[in-house]
Amino acid sequence: MHGPLVMIAGAGQYPVRLAQILAGHGERPFIAALEGAADPAAFGDADVRSYRLGQLGSLLSELRRRSIGDIVMLGSLPRPSFGALRPEASTLKYLPHFARAFQGGDDHLLRGVVRFFEEQGFRVHGPADIAPELTAPRGPLGRRQATAEQQAMLGHGFSLLAALSPFDVGQTAILADHRVIAIEAAEGTDAMIRRVADLVARGRLKIGKGDGVLVKAPKTGQDLRVDMPAIGPDTLRNIAEAGLSGIGLRAGEVLVGDREALGRQADQLGLFIEGVA
Amino acid sequence: MHGPLVMIAGAGQYPVRLAQILAGHGERPFIAALEGAADPAAFGDADVRSYRLGQLGSLLSELRRRSIGDIVMLGSLPRPSFGALRPEASTLKYLPHFARAFQGGDDHLLRGVVRFFEEQGFRVHGPADIAPELTAPRGPLGRRQATAEQQAMLGHGFSLLAALSPFDVGQTAILADHRVIAIEAAEGTDAMIRRVADLVARGRLKIGKGDGVLVKAPKTGQDLRVDMPAIGPDTLRNIAEAGLSGIGLRAGEVLVGDREALGRQADQLGLFIEGVA
Repeated sequence: MHGPLVMIAGAGQYPVRLAQILAGHGERPFIAALEGAADPAAFGDADVRSYRLGQLGSLLSELRRRSIGDIVMLGSLPRPSFGALRPEASTLKYLPHFARAFQGGDDHLLRGVVRFFEEQGFRVHGPADIAPELTAPRGPLGRRQATAEQQAMLGHGFSLLAALSPFDVGQTAILADHRVIAIEAAEGTDAMIRRVADLVARGRLKIGKGDGVLVKAPKTGQDLRVDMPAIGPDTLRNIAEAGLSGIGLRAGEVLVGDREALGRQADQLGLFIEGVA
Repeated sequence: MHGPLVMIAGAGQYPVRLAQILAGHGERPFIAALEGAADPAAFGDADVRSYRLGQLGSLLSELRRRSIGDIVMLGSLPRPSFGALRPEASTLKYLPHFARAFQGGDDHLLRGVVRFFEEQGFRVHGPADIAPELTAPRGPLGRRQATAEQQAMLGHGFSLLAALSPFDVGQTAILADHRVIAIEAAEGTDAMIRRVADLVARGRLKIGKGDGVLVKAPKTGQDLRVDMPAIGPDTLRNIAEAGLSGIGLRAGEVLVGDREALGRQADQLGLFIEGVA
């Protein structure tokens, strides 16, 4: 599937988890840990080196020296300020490309980054292509499974997300009692869950036991190589606190990091979490 | 269009406004003010009488005594508790109908009420049919008009609402910088606006001058006889505080109450508010 590989690593648990999965496959990628985002020490004895964004030239030289032609990018990165790049001399010639990419939303910037590496002759892979284990599998991650009624609500929710997709919004929604009760836009998933918890706490909304569900899927056309929806332990805790009964994730297209750990947490919280094809 | 008319009046400014508009047409409907919701004194010297919900039998007798065959219902009503109806003797026989209607959402209950009156031989009219002046006209209500760019965002927003309609959600959304930044579900319009104001206040979202817009339209298939979206002075104040530039309303299908007053308020707040066909 891929030759010698570099992981360009941002913040969070996913890059570390990907390195572990690849190590389990007997693979030892070169890891370029982005300064201020990824802690090189978190990767243990992996082949890791830190780079500032302004050291793109050095990174490219190192990749060529190592005959690395395959790239995977993973982890979050605060949107960099163009002025704070402090480019080294060997990076200066690439700036015009990024100056254009910076003039747009995050999607535009990410697409610009992918295009840059492709123009430089690299293949950019999605984390899910490199390690499907990072994503929600088909079926339940823990012991609980969605009931037929919960499955029907998940299906309704995924249809809603698909209908929203052309508007470049709506990766996540919450349904209860077969109604849509919250749709995520600029506020983010956790704020949306807190809103529902708050409506319940103030008696504005009742969610019966085994009722409320959250659905999460990428938008149609989202570039899963650099921009995947993700769910983690915090989200699970939040939906338990909001009194929801579980989570449906588009199988293979939502990052979960550690499937087993998330399944165990769901069991402890009394939630279902499952991937839906 | 209609014969002798009763307005069944709930809470808020709209029933009073409708009585004023009809008075302006030389019409003097009978007003059944629902106890605990509508204040009979607010209607001045109109032909008004108070009824509890449990006095449905008395109301029907009075309507027949007056040969009234046309009904308009307007104003909000807290969802009544079936147990608290305290039905009078002449109302008891109608209870089975409403017992069924109570077993469902608000939409179901409202449809049940309409069906009940129709079965009793009445014609139920929408407030917009009786008095189109209550709704947003085509074009601006105040002095400001949406720019071409704002109109494009309104169009995008109305398309979004139409796409959401089959899911029985989404009467209102907020867009800025050509992106959808908030979609209303169970939280209600004012909470959605506050959310956007909050994202801006915390630096999570930037809304440029002249940028953010709110769109409001009924859902496809919504029964506009008993359930119209509405916008009032509070909403206008809230969107000004959130730093939005204006509001687009589906013309003829969103209640505005007093067009002139709302237009003047929009002028004072520096907002556009307009109906879109």
